[in-house]
Amino acid sequence: MVTTAFVDRLRDIVGADWVLTDAASRHEYGADALRRGHPADVVVCAGRTADVSAVARLCTEMRIPLVPRGAGTGFSGGAVPLHGGVVLSLERMNRILEIDEANLLAVVEPCVITGDLQDAVEAVGLFYPPDPASLRRSSIGGNVAECAGGPRAFKYGVTRQYVLGLEAVLMSGEVVQTGGKVVKNVVGYDLTQLLVGSEGTLAILTRITLRLIPKPPAVATLRAMFPSVRAAVDAVGGLVRARVVPSTMEIVDRATLEAVARSLGDRTLAPEGTDAMLLIEVDGLAELVEAEAIRVASACRNAGATEVLRAANDAERESLWRVRRGISPALMVIADLKINNDIVVPKGRVPECFDLIDRLKAEFDLPMPSFGHVGDGNIHVNIMVSPDDPDAMRRAREAEAELFRGVVALGGAISGEHGVGFTKAPYLGLGLDAPTIGLMQAVKQAFDPLGLLNPGKIFPGRTGGADAGSGP
Amino acid sequence: MVTTAFVDRLRDIVGADWVLTDAASRHEYGADALRRGHPADVVVCAGRTADVSAVARLCTEMRIPLVPRGAGTGFSGGAVPLHGGVVLSLERMNRILEIDEANLLAVVEPCVITGDLQDAVEAVGLFYPPDPASLRRSSIGGNVAECAGGPRAFKYGVTRQYVLGLEAVLMSGEVVQTGGKVVKNVVGYDLTQLLVGSEGTLAILTRITLRLIPKPPAVATLRAMFPSVRAAVDAVGGLVRARVVPSTMEIVDRATLEAVARSLGDRTLAPEGTDAMLLIEVDGLAELVEAEAIRVASACRNAGATEVLRAANDAERESLWRVRRGISPALMVIADLKINNDIVVPKGRVPECFDLIDRLKAEFDLPMPSFGHVGDGNIHVNIMVSPDDPDAMRRAREAEAELFRGVVALGGAISGEHGVGFTKAPYLGLGLDAPTIGLMQAVKQAFDPLGLLNPGKIFPGRTGGADAGSGP
Repeated sequence: MVTTAFVDRLRDIVGADWVLTDAASRHEYGADALRRGHPADVVVCAGRTADVSAVARLCTEMRIPLVPRGAGTGFSGGAVPLHGGVVLSLERMNRILEIDEANLLAVVEPCVITGDLQDAVEAVGLFYPPDPASLRRSSIGGNVAECAGGPRAFKYGVTRQYVLGLEAVLMSGEVVQTGGKVVKNVVGYDLTQLLVGSEGTLAILTRITLRLIPKPPAVATLRAMFPSVRAAVDAVGGLVRARVVPSTMEIVDRATLEAVARSLGDRTLAPEGTDAMLLIEVDGLAELVEAEAIRVASACRNAGATEVLRAANDAERESLWRVRRGISPALMVIADLKINNDIVVPKGRVPECFDLIDRLKAEFDLPMPSFGHVGDGNIHVNIMVSPDDPDAMRRAREAEAELFRGVVALGGAISGEHGVGFTKAPYLGLGLDAPTIGLMQAVKQAFDPLGLLNPGKIFPGRTGGADAGSGP
Repeated sequence: MVTTAFVDRLRDIVGADWVLTDAASRHEYGADALRRGHPADVVVCAGRTADVSAVARLCTEMRIPLVPRGAGTGFSGGAVPLHGGVVLSLERMNRILEIDEANLLAVVEPCVITGDLQDAVEAVGLFYPPDPASLRRSSIGGNVAECAGGPRAFKYGVTRQYVLGLEAVLMSGEVVQTGGKVVKNVVGYDLTQLLVGSEGTLAILTRITLRLIPKPPAVATLRAMFPSVRAAVDAVGGLVRARVVPSTMEIVDRATLEAVARSLGDRTLAPEGTDAMLLIEVDGLAELVEAEAIRVASACRNAGATEVLRAANDAERESLWRVRRGISPALMVIADLKINNDIVVPKGRVPECFDLIDRLKAEFDLPMPSFGHVGDGNIHVNIMVSPDDPDAMRRAREAEAELFRGVVALGGAISGEHGVGFTKAPYLGLGLDAPTIGLMQAVKQAFDPLGLLNPGKIFPGRTGGADAGSGP
């Protein structure tokens, strides 16, 4: 239990200014982008690794849950203190410690904003590819904890591929150093990769070493309109067969296009006869970009594209991206609640995935505008619903469960980017069998024997999922 | 203890033909490329996952060590049964189960030979980049267990980057399925990545799903000669600064060049005034390759290359690769024993690494021909010694320990490709602190509570390292 004496000891560790106990802060730090939170008992803002270590040790001593928090932009409730206790905010640990051009790496504290790091490294001709939609607000630490993806993952891979080393604090207060500054390292188990995507349930990340690559000197952006989702997916298949590797291949379906057209007041964004849009980028040396852009346009036309545009300059590029960037706000005009699923199927099965979505739309009578990273088979299926309509909410939950079952049947997974958190914890057993879940729980036990670090996440149980309060 | 009754039960599982107890087999399967082995008590050749599971369960019941074995080409003794017991050979599980062109992946059994898989996927225009020197003899399962690298890792990454999913058997006999056929997957802990590089100490791999990429349609191979190692490394630095990403950047030092020249009877391979050679390849679309080959040649000349050759065709390409491919046999003419170290430093510190090697050569009066993957900072330092000269052997072991200390001081790691096995186990604490090693041991405990799977590997202790017999 969080007592006054406990709070005083927290103040001794980080200083009184950095311990928040007022109701507004406890609620603010108890929610993330999911908007279904649970208030913290107390919020602590750590300034350095030693603070994190001391707070973890104290929580272990007092048997109080601890939930690490980056920028709070997660969609699966990863930073929500389901069981109360301490929310340990890392927001003060936000420095870029090193950009090492000779070794192509950066060392950062966990709460550097991803977009800020990208700007800093691009200023010296380097590149940090992972680009989750939240990159202007989300932190590298959160990106690592959730293994964030983004449009560029088809060519460049996800966050995991860029993490070389970590400093992490265990609930015992011990500080471990995993990996390092080399890209090849086979000394002992790869705890770095185990911690990436562990959703703050194994250790608290306090320092991150990231691999960088040269910034591609040129980029071409193309937009193609298709009469059907299947035609758009055929174009992607054509590119795969032509062995072209675009940096980005985004698909946007008719329902999403209409929402964006309405929201931006521009009917031309969803022309008659268009059921799907592809936004494709190729990047690299200028010579390569020219050659690949031609191949992309031709694959789109061969698959039946009714229109193919290529941006001639940065302004036109920005204009082509308008639809993709405008999706999130636009969808909110359809309904108040967007149940944002980030399912993933093997890329060749994307057409079947869209067939499944069509069936669910009809069966559950709900709008499900969908878009996503078609090259990865990672589709965002947004079940739009009014939270004030209990029947629609019931249908939405049933549709979601049916979506997850269908995706697993297609050889896919229930989450490609957002993580399990507590929202998908009840569904963990859909894609993983009992021995595999048992092994994951044994790993959790090895890191956090008392189960105090971010409890109620990933694993199903009476504490996770649907029981969570609706929060602040 | 391995009794007749135990061997009979093994025969019941896999059939009498697949249980070997003769001395020749027990010795043969007790050694790997390290050539310091320990005989198995019994060798079992499993034909399918159910066999592996039943053998593991039996070994657990009888408390008998089990050592999984692929093609037996490892350099750190990973497949050596230090404590006797069962060697479980997977050589019969050698089928390519699926090459899925639409989804850019392959599913294989563990003992597919790496080069055979490469040939099969290249025949359909796809590419499996990891290319350890042993690729014509080593197996995918072994490559995954050790996280094999190779020359192409600078551009394409190591084995880890291509493993999407695994079927693995625990010592309990339970079969777990990790990951799958999607490239984005954040459902639960990434046990796939934890198992990659775990050196057969956590689970036995029985099925592997690999990511493929399009085969680069063109390649250019260049060879440049330099008056000094530093000039060669400067050329590499120039390429990094010019943001060129070759697929291969191999460095070969003077001592190695001389050995190869002698072995192949071709003095022109080690011309007067040449202290280092770079072998560089760029690959991709033809347009890109042309542009990058020009940049490579110019970076080499700017750094002081005395000669830059570019292969005009496959025959010339093969001729340029002659030196690199001829190294291993050539070095054996210097001395009977090659203590083959695969240290790695941050790429910018390669010059300091070569300074260190020069110092050790002088201090310990031993030949140390060195070559390797300079783009990754991964250098093979071969300490050449006669095993019949006890004083030289003592100096070699001291030089190796000093090399490891120096590499860690440069921010590097003691192994970039070969793994820890038992040969480097005594040095684990050089690069990893006690809490990190403790955490790795807790992970081992979670997978293998009785410590029966491949004992004596990775972790230091009375059983590992120098105590091992010299074997068959």
